[in-house]
Amino acid sequence: MHDYNDTICAISTAQGQGAIAVIRLSGDETFAIIDQVFKSPKAGKLLTNQKANTVHFGTIYDGHTDIDEVLVSVFRAPYSFTGEDIVEIACHGAPYIQQQLLQLLVRKGARLAKAGEFTQRAFLNGKMDLSQAEAVADLIHARSEAARRVALQQMRGGFSNELINLRAQLLHFITLVELELDFSEEDVEFAERSELSKLVTNVATLLTKLVNSFSLGNAIKNGIPVAIVGHTNAGKSTLLNTLLQEEKAIVSEIHGTTRDVIEDTLNIEGITFRFIDTAGIRKTDDTIENMGISRTYNKIKQATIVLLMLDIIDEDEKIHEAVADVKAHMEAHQQLIVVINKTDVLDEAEIKERFSKTLFTELSQNDAVVPISAKLQTNIEALNAELLKTVNTQAIDNDEVIVTNARHYEALQKAHEGITRVADGLTSGISSDFLSQDIREVLHYLGEITGQINTDEVLANIFKNFCIGK
Amino acid sequence: MHDYNDTICAISTAQGQGAIAVIRLSGDETFAIIDQVFKSPKAGKLLTNQKANTVHFGTIYDGHTDIDEVLVSVFRAPYSFTGEDIVEIACHGAPYIQQQLLQLLVRKGARLAKAGEFTQRAFLNGKMDLSQAEAVADLIHARSEAARRVALQQMRGGFSNELINLRAQLLHFITLVELELDFSEEDVEFAERSELSKLVTNVATLLTKLVNSFSLGNAIKNGIPVAIVGHTNAGKSTLLNTLLQEEKAIVSEIHGTTRDVIEDTLNIEGITFRFIDTAGIRKTDDTIENMGISRTYNKIKQATIVLLMLDIIDEDEKIHEAVADVKAHMEAHQQLIVVINKTDVLDEAEIKERFSKTLFTELSQNDAVVPISAKLQTNIEALNAELLKTVNTQAIDNDEVIVTNARHYEALQKAHEGITRVADGLTSGISSDFLSQDIREVLHYLGEITGQINTDEVLANIFKNFCIGK
Repeated sequence: MHDYNDTICAISTAQGQGAIAVIRLSGDETFAIIDQVFKSPKAGKLLTNQKANTVHFGTIYDGHTDIDEVLVSVFRAPYSFTGEDIVEIACHGAPYIQQQLLQLLVRKGARLAKAGEFTQRAFLNGKMDLSQAEAVADLIHARSEAARRVALQQMRGGFSNELINLRAQLLHFITLVELELDFSEEDVEFAERSELSKLVTNVATLLTKLVNSFSLGNAIKNGIPVAIVGHTNAGKSTLLNTLLQEEKAIVSEIHGTTRDVIEDTLNIEGITFRFIDTAGIRKTDDTIENMGISRTYNKIKQATIVLLMLDIIDEDEKIHEAVADVKAHMEAHQQLIVVINKTDVLDEAEIKERFSKTLFTELSQNDAVVPISAKLQTNIEALNAELLKTVNTQAIDNDEVIVTNARHYEALQKAHEGITRVADGLTSGISSDFLSQDIREVLHYLGEITGQINTDEVLANIFKNFCIGK
Repeated sequence: MHDYNDTICAISTAQGQGAIAVIRLSGDETFAIIDQVFKSPKAGKLLTNQKANTVHFGTIYDGHTDIDEVLVSVFRAPYSFTGEDIVEIACHGAPYIQQQLLQLLVRKGARLAKAGEFTQRAFLNGKMDLSQAEAVADLIHARSEAARRVALQQMRGGFSNELINLRAQLLHFITLVELELDFSEEDVEFAERSELSKLVTNVATLLTKLVNSFSLGNAIKNGIPVAIVGHTNAGKSTLLNTLLQEEKAIVSEIHGTTRDVIEDTLNIEGITFRFIDTAGIRKTDDTIENMGISRTYNKIKQATIVLLMLDIIDEDEKIHEAVADVKAHMEAHQQLIVVINKTDVLDEAEIKERFSKTLFTELSQNDAVVPISAKLQTNIEALNAELLKTVNTQAIDNDEVIVTNARHYEALQKAHEGITRVADGLTSGISSDFLSQDIREVLHYLGEITGQINTDEVLANIFKNFCIGK
């Protein structure tokens, strides 16, 4: 596994050629290593003698060869990211030079850092708890405003202070409850049951709130799945292109934008929507076509939002049929948005007349209908607004605590189950030993989230998904 | 064109996602801009009040929204890379966050920097001359040890101090020569001709040395072209794979190596060799095949080294013919290396016998013969040594001044032509006005190299090839 006593190094900036690159070195030997390879224009100046949080110009050399002119930033334990001595070397951004410097540091005694190892050390040195450490990775991977915002909040503590606090109180109680076990024959109660009840209610309330926030958190982190259903000629791809083009235009105004644009993923006001294309739906006896249609039904199941595209000049019967068919395959928690396209082929009076008809008898109050022209890009804002309605953007804007991490969600669910058992046990007056066991379980799962309880295996799993250099 | 009074910003690290990214801000308004968006945990702390070369932790915010937690390094005019006030913001490496920060800086009054604009400002503010500025780009693009080394040397002044010094002396003389023009009727000589002669000789010597160094410099920068000639079954591709695999193995030991490995480019002890594949050569009446062969002859012409691969068990006649044919298409400055492959099929005695024959009567003393086994990777070091012999590695090791830049080469050539005319003029005793004209030309070309003479057009051409953020 990891060795936490040695000094590690890695390239911390993105791969490839840039104007500059940053190489990070952290550990007890940081200054011993850097002062073997760094020389300042001021003769005899050593970085080990420099103040924390200062930057120094000089040359990285290897024997008689000068490798590069660099700026080195000095940070000192414990006031650094990892809590250890750190230097950051800003060198010229040629991949060749980056590699040379890295190899040189390794020859002088550093070890190449594993993925996430700097952040792992920050956790192990008590600079942040585990959920904060995980948020560092989320922040680095943030692709939307909401994802950035929630990750930053979590990195800054998020719910962990509250969890740690409640856990400490539970720990206090369990000590008293377990004391009762020593005096089990005497039937004493050291732990005031009414106080414990209050605490359990508080814990249960917080856990319920956190568990419930995960559907939003997951949507923020992974995007909200939107199945687009409709015949090809309904204008599905025109709509997608319209939406995607707008986004691309915004992005390409700025130099150096990331180039790996993923098709069919949209950012609307900071929220990511993942569009899932489907085959058209219609009644048919064709076996192959029916297979495609059954796949469409599957995709509807995976979606949070089902966007049914219809053509305004479709016959009434066709519209009724399509709406009924899609509704039949949806569940209560899913949102239906019926998009009536090609409003450009009718004038306003005709559209009004069309909508006055009892076209949408199949729809309930929660379902939305949006008339648009994908071609002329009319009323797209109304569609965006309907998509956004499915997201509790207020919770994001108010920086409410939102769980985005599946590992946290799982532990929170289990802690919630545990605390429910504790609450039930208190009501039914179960014995101290059963009570103790249930509280211990809750303590365990809460501790897993913040890392107060951890195993090497859990840590390895968490940090392996980090990028190298962080 | 460029506006040199505004404050510019750019992402200076490589594109894409990294652990961290660095955004650079340079200009008069640097602190006015950063202090609108940066807040320290210490209330009221402003970066504008901080000492040069210090690093500060804090939050970049936009109105009520915190964008990211960052480290900001503070540099002050004139002791910075550009000579202006600079801050460098190290943020979390999500491309989304990088873009948000950049957009924020632009909204607060910065302008997106053009390619090379930071270095251009360094030049315009007298932090470096033009040839040094160009070396910054060379350093960032360095793909081999020699390229890195020569670029670093040039960035640190290289030949420019010497050029500037000689140019100043010439300038002194031309003032005197031109003074003579004012007194042309009186036939006076203010400029001591023997002194001028000495100076002209010095300039000519330096220019000759520099002009001659370009063939090496060009080889270092762009790689040395090696045409591999030989029948397919001679083991050409096995050899290439052997060489390439070794290199790839070295490179892949290190994490985060650049992924754009260019096929058929080899680094041997810091020198880049570019292998040019050719069709096999043999006498034939086939028209199509002859077209391929004539292409091979063309590729031989482009090469610095011709590597002729032969099979050790080929018939004597075939070998004689191949060597004679290739030699016939080579010029005096090109190096021939005859590689006899498949030595593994014979034992040592047989190989010795084969080589004792007068197999290579066509070869001169400068031509090399290397027996190898590409399959068993025998004697590859001898081949590497022969390839390296064509390069004046001593000049590199001794950090001799080597011109790598085609623009400099062109100007140096023209300056050399000019100084030759001046020398001839001095010998033949031409009149002051002709002498003055020739010296002016030399001054012009020398000044172009260091940028003492420049036009917006020249600058634009030079810096457009830089990467953004440098």
